[in-house]
Amino acid sequence: MIPADIIAKKRNGEELKTIDLSKFIKDYLSNKITDAQMSALLMAIYFNGMTDKELFTLVEEMIISGRILDFNKNTYTADKHSTGGIGDKTSIILAPVIASSGIKVPMIAGKGLEYTGGTIDKLNSIPGMNTSPPIDIFKKWVNNLGCAIISQSNTICPADNKIYQLRNQTATVPSIPIICSSIMSKKIAEGISGLVIDIKVGNGTFMKTKEHALQLSNLMKKIAIRFNLNLDIIFSNMDQPLGRYAGLGCEIQEAIQCFKGKGPKDLMQVTESLSSKLLIQSEKAKNQKEATKIFNEIIQSGKGLRMFENMVKSQGGQLDSLKNHINYKFEKTIFCSENGVINYMNTEKIGWSLVELGCGYKKPNDILDYSAGIQFLAKKGEKVSKGQPIYRVFNTNLLKLNNTIDLLKSTYTIGNEYIENPLLL
Amino acid sequence: MIPADIIAKKRNGEELKTIDLSKFIKDYLSNKITDAQMSALLMAIYFNGMTDKELFTLVEEMIISGRILDFNKNTYTADKHSTGGIGDKTSIILAPVIASSGIKVPMIAGKGLEYTGGTIDKLNSIPGMNTSPPIDIFKKWVNNLGCAIISQSNTICPADNKIYQLRNQTATVPSIPIICSSIMSKKIAEGISGLVIDIKVGNGTFMKTKEHALQLSNLMKKIAIRFNLNLDIIFSNMDQPLGRYAGLGCEIQEAIQCFKGKGPKDLMQVTESLSSKLLIQSEKAKNQKEATKIFNEIIQSGKGLRMFENMVKSQGGQLDSLKNHINYKFEKTIFCSENGVINYMNTEKIGWSLVELGCGYKKPNDILDYSAGIQFLAKKGEKVSKGQPIYRVFNTNLLKLNNTIDLLKSTYTIGNEYIENPLLL
Repeated sequence: MIPADIIAKKRNGEELKTIDLSKFIKDYLSNKITDAQMSALLMAIYFNGMTDKELFTLVEEMIISGRILDFNKNTYTADKHSTGGIGDKTSIILAPVIASSGIKVPMIAGKGLEYTGGTIDKLNSIPGMNTSPPIDIFKKWVNNLGCAIISQSNTICPADNKIYQLRNQTATVPSIPIICSSIMSKKIAEGISGLVIDIKVGNGTFMKTKEHALQLSNLMKKIAIRFNLNLDIIFSNMDQPLGRYAGLGCEIQEAIQCFKGKGPKDLMQVTESLSSKLLIQSEKAKNQKEATKIFNEIIQSGKGLRMFENMVKSQGGQLDSLKNHINYKFEKTIFCSENGVINYMNTEKIGWSLVELGCGYKKPNDILDYSAGIQFLAKKGEKVSKGQPIYRVFNTNLLKLNNTIDLLKSTYTIGNEYIENPLLL
Repeated sequence: MIPADIIAKKRNGEELKTIDLSKFIKDYLSNKITDAQMSALLMAIYFNGMTDKELFTLVEEMIISGRILDFNKNTYTADKHSTGGIGDKTSIILAPVIASSGIKVPMIAGKGLEYTGGTIDKLNSIPGMNTSPPIDIFKKWVNNLGCAIISQSNTICPADNKIYQLRNQTATVPSIPIICSSIMSKKIAEGISGLVIDIKVGNGTFMKTKEHALQLSNLMKKIAIRFNLNLDIIFSNMDQPLGRYAGLGCEIQEAIQCFKGKGPKDLMQVTESLSSKLLIQSEKAKNQKEATKIFNEIIQSGKGLRMFENMVKSQGGQLDSLKNHINYKFEKTIFCSENGVINYMNTEKIGWSLVELGCGYKKPNDILDYSAGIQFLAKKGEKVSKGQPIYRVFNTNLLKLNNTIDLLKSTYTIGNEYIENPLLL
């Protein structure tokens, strides 16, 4: 069948034959199908969706387009994924905590996408940290220590990588089956037994409504069943940043505070909830109560911190040099202009402010400012008075800092009342 | 505004700003926008349509992307366009007839597209015929003689040309605003005062229903008003091929028969109807009766034939050599298997059979077989008996001939009854 006929079929709302869709993806990876043809198909999928059968074929083709990792089956191997938010450093805490319990965590994480922060960018603020090793070195790290966090590699799911790059330019990102296949194929190719996904819902995420989050969750569950993966999903609120810091190096510092038992409550709550799912899934814990106990013990004993330090060390990172490395030059504070309670934060706009500040990418190869970040001195539901500091903003480029301050000024509102939304939905 | 944001806006069903759409098209022509981005926009337009304002911007950008012809304003200058069918050689008859009446006809016609025949391909069966001259030579031909028929040139509407080539590969052809802008921009850039369009409706055309045909017609009328062009539209039925022949050289021979007053009734009726619109539009005729009189007089006097011969001659073609040039090698006949009346012809499938036979393009640079064609010995509504010949098929490649015969066998049905559809709707 010729490529245009396959696109036309999807455009007309018909189901594609497995053989045709498989060939389309294979031919795209080998450049027989053009970017123009793939982007037309993606846009048609945006409008007409995919059947389960098509979705499974897409996931399968993405997986088999690259290498599939394998780990010793005697040890439970698991990973965590988040759909992206602001100030979300749970992966950096969770991987060492879960590894401390005896589960292997071969975590492949992302760079910043649009206004959401990237785990890899944050880790790269640690001098010497290698997040792009050859895949066999990654496997060795995981086997030796129990965990490692690296960046998406073209060895794994190259078909997804190629499509992923096209989606950003062609406005075909927010297609639920495509998002779903992209996430799930990469995780399945890691060779893991279990997965926990944090679907962020709220004004600082790609899923603005619970309805979309549920659609995504349903598709992910179907894929997990089809590909024999244990999957738990939590929905967490992202109507404000998670924790007290968002940026690059400062998020690593906040993560270290968490390992020391001094982390902010919301961040610890989400991390614990995600960790518990994996502890129960792997039968390390019988129930939630036991899982919480294990989680707390790993933090309180310092095992989690040591595992994190060892992970950084095994990946070449020098935690001792972090503080000097992320020493910012400029700092400004935004003060509250009235008395009341913070009842709204425009989290997406805070995310774009962070991009402006130097923590995210405007263009694919932008150089990031590892010292840059925002401290949230007041958050939603907190009483504030006129003249009280709300945001502390810091980086090494004064022009960018000033631009960010302008953006940030309209990212919150103060009122008389505040209705609390639950953090875990 | 960045390209992906413009695509996203159209994807979300919002109206694009004139400045953004203009820039998008200009940037596409200068390769700053990629094929992938344009095809994503085209697919989004397929689903969400265009507002009139957007459509006018698109047409304007296509026109000003290339050269706009100008002719002496003292002479009425007009052209005809068809949306494409099988066996439709009306352009080849109409241009010389209309030129004989004193109207100038600078006709820019197309090559075969998918399963529909191309006027240019048919003319190219005449040895020596030049259908791709420099644009100033074309103007000279029209000014000297009154008419010329050439192929789409990149000098006129290059933005449309570039988009047109992309549409075929990316299954974004059947978008009514895009079809409409593509047709109208090229005609407006010819510098004509008047235009008649034959919208084909039926199973052998891109417009399978009258409803779609009316949508197209309404948009064309809006554009004509906006760009100050006299426009008449007729709707003609294409539930069977037009005339008794479809192919390449054989259609030129049938056109010559028409000039001699020996043309098939259906073909002459459509040609006369289209010609009358231009004769009335240009005030050469006061009404339909006068227009018919002029049309018949041009045919009967032999003026039309002489104009055709002169047109071919001025374009370098040698009509005397046509017969030798299109001498086919192989010939097969399909016979009727039962008694009854032909009540259905799958005209699109007949079109694809012609492509298989060598009359159309499977790939853009395929070499055509000018000798190839089909004679329709029986058509819809005609009584047939078992063993009677229905199709006579001929070309110079036996393998292709046999493939065509296989395809053609299931392109008609015979029943007891036949309900006649009017030719002009």
